[in-house]
Amino acid sequence: MSFGGIEAGGTHWNCAIGGAEGAELTRVETFPTTTPAETIGRATEFFAAEPGLEALGLGLFGPVDVRRDSPSWGTILSTPKPGWENVNVAGALADALEVPIALDTDVNAAAVGEWRHGGAQGLDTFVYLTVGTGIGGGVFANRLRVHGLLHPEVGHMLVPHDRTRDPFEGCCPFHGDCLEGLASGTAMRERWGRTGEELTDPAAWDLEAEYLALGLANLTMTLSVERIVLGGGVGRAPGLVEQVDERLRDALAGYVPAPEVVAPGLGPRSGLVGAISLARAAR
Amino acid sequence: MSFGGIEAGGTHWNCAIGGAEGAELTRVETFPTTTPAETIGRATEFFAAEPGLEALGLGLFGPVDVRRDSPSWGTILSTPKPGWENVNVAGALADALEVPIALDTDVNAAAVGEWRHGGAQGLDTFVYLTVGTGIGGGVFANRLRVHGLLHPEVGHMLVPHDRTRDPFEGCCPFHGDCLEGLASGTAMRERWGRTGEELTDPAAWDLEAEYLALGLANLTMTLSVERIVLGGGVGRAPGLVEQVDERLRDALAGYVPAPEVVAPGLGPRSGLVGAISLARAAR
Repeated sequence: MSFGGIEAGGTHWNCAIGGAEGAELTRVETFPTTTPAETIGRATEFFAAEPGLEALGLGLFGPVDVRRDSPSWGTILSTPKPGWENVNVAGALADALEVPIALDTDVNAAAVGEWRHGGAQGLDTFVYLTVGTGIGGGVFANRLRVHGLLHPEVGHMLVPHDRTRDPFEGCCPFHGDCLEGLASGTAMRERWGRTGEELTDPAAWDLEAEYLALGLANLTMTLSVERIVLGGGVGRAPGLVEQVDERLRDALAGYVPAPEVVAPGLGPRSGLVGAISLARAAR
Repeated sequence: MSFGGIEAGGTHWNCAIGGAEGAELTRVETFPTTTPAETIGRATEFFAAEPGLEALGLGLFGPVDVRRDSPSWGTILSTPKPGWENVNVAGALADALEVPIALDTDVNAAAVGEWRHGGAQGLDTFVYLTVGTGIGGGVFANRLRVHGLLHPEVGHMLVPHDRTRDPFEGCCPFHGDCLEGLASGTAMRERWGRTGEELTDPAAWDLEAEYLALGLANLTMTLSVERIVLGGGVGRAPGLVEQVDERLRDALAGYVPAPEVVAPGLGPRSGLVGAISLARAAR
C-alpha cells in the first residue's frame, strides 16, 4: 500500500510517497511553484508513476477553502501569488489521479506530521509555526486541528511595531506590517537587502527574534499552547529557536507559564509526513 | 434540584441559583470583590442558604489553575489584585459547602453560557470577549473549551500601539500596553481621566474601537473564529459592537472572511448561566 503527500507551498512543492504507517518517505521530489498548470502537472506526473496509490494528502498554501462540503472546496482564495487566486487545486488533482484526496493547509498538515510522528506527539494544544518566504501556522486545540470559519492564518496577526527602531513599513500586500510583513524571509530581504542566509548582523537577528517572540506571545495568550514548533527556512537559522524562546519569556513577563519553543522533530519533513498521515485517514 | 453558579470577577462576584435546565436564574446576588475571606464568606452564606444544592459552578478570574489533577487546582496564580495571589478559592468553597465544584475561568464560563443558551449556540469555534475593568476571553475550538497549558488570557495579547496618536503608556502592570493595558475600562479612565460611561468624545471611542478591532483581528487570524461575542461593561457601550465590527473588516483587509461581532445573547448573565451549566455537568 502506498500513500502520496504534497506539501504545496507558495515557493516550492514537495511530493512524496509513504507506506501504511510511520514517518519514512520512499520517494521525494521538489520543484518550484510556477504556474498552476505546470505545477499541478508535475505533481500529477509524480503520483501517476506510483503503482497502487491508495490516496493523496494535500497540504496547500492558503487561504484555501478546506470545508469538504463547500462548492469551492480545494480552491485557493485571496492570495498575493499571481495566477493562483481561485484555482481549484484539489479538484484538478482528483480529476487527474482518481484517488481520494485529503486536504488541509500546508501548515496544518505539518502540524499533523509533528503531532503524529515529530516533536508534538499527543499534545492537547500546540502550534506549528513556519517562517520562510511567508509565515504560517498550523493549530491544534483539544487534540484536533483548528479550522473554524476557514483556517488559522497566524502569520497575519498584528503585532507592535516600533517605527523608531525599525522604520521598515512591512511587506504584506494585505496588512503592511503584520507579523509576516515584518518577520518573514521576504521582509528580511526587503529590509536589509540581503537574504536571511546572508545576514550575519546580530542586530538583524535580534529584531527577527523579537518579532517572532511577540507573535508567539500572542499565540500563548490566545490558545495557551503547550508547545510551539518553529520551522521553515528562516526558522532553521542557527540559534534562532533559543533566542525566540528567551524573548518569549520576556514578553510574557511571568504572567502566564511560557510554552516550550522547539525545532521540528521531523526537521524539514513535517509537511510531507503530515500530508501522508492525512492521506492514510482518507483512504 | 438546584444548581449554584458564581461569576467571580476581579471587581464583583455574582452568585445565582438555577434549575436542572435552561437559562433562568431564580436567585441572584452581587457584591464587590474585597478580601478573599470576606468575599468567599459572602458566597458561602448565599449558597448555604439554598436547600438541596446539588453542585456549584465557579467561573473565576485568573490566571487560575483549572487543571483538575493539579495540586494547586482552584488557586489564583499571578494576579495584580492585592491579596488574591495563591488563594485557593475553589478549595475554600468546596470545604465550606460540601458539594461538587466545577471550575473554569470567569470568561470560559461565560463562553459556555453563550454556547449553550445565548448567541453562540452550537458553534465550532468562537470567542466570548469581555471588556470591563480588564479584558478577558473565553475560547471554544472544535466545540470544546480551550485550556491548553493553563487557559487563554486573550486580554494580554500584544497589539500595535501608535504612540504618536496615543501617547498613553498603557496600564497593565505586567505588559504595559497590551490590549488590556490600552483598551480596558481602567485604561480609558487613566488615559482620559473619566470612566467609559462619562466619555462622550467620539475620538475616544474611535480609539477604543480601533484597539478592540486589532485584538479581534488577531483572534480571527489565530483561531479563524466564526463569531465573537463582545460583552462586559465597556463592551455594552451604545454602538460599540457595530463600530468594532466595521473596524475589524478594515483590519482584516479582505484577506480572510470576517467573523460576526455580536452582543451577548444572554446580556450580562452569560457568566452566571455558564457557571450553572458547568455545575449541572459536575453533579
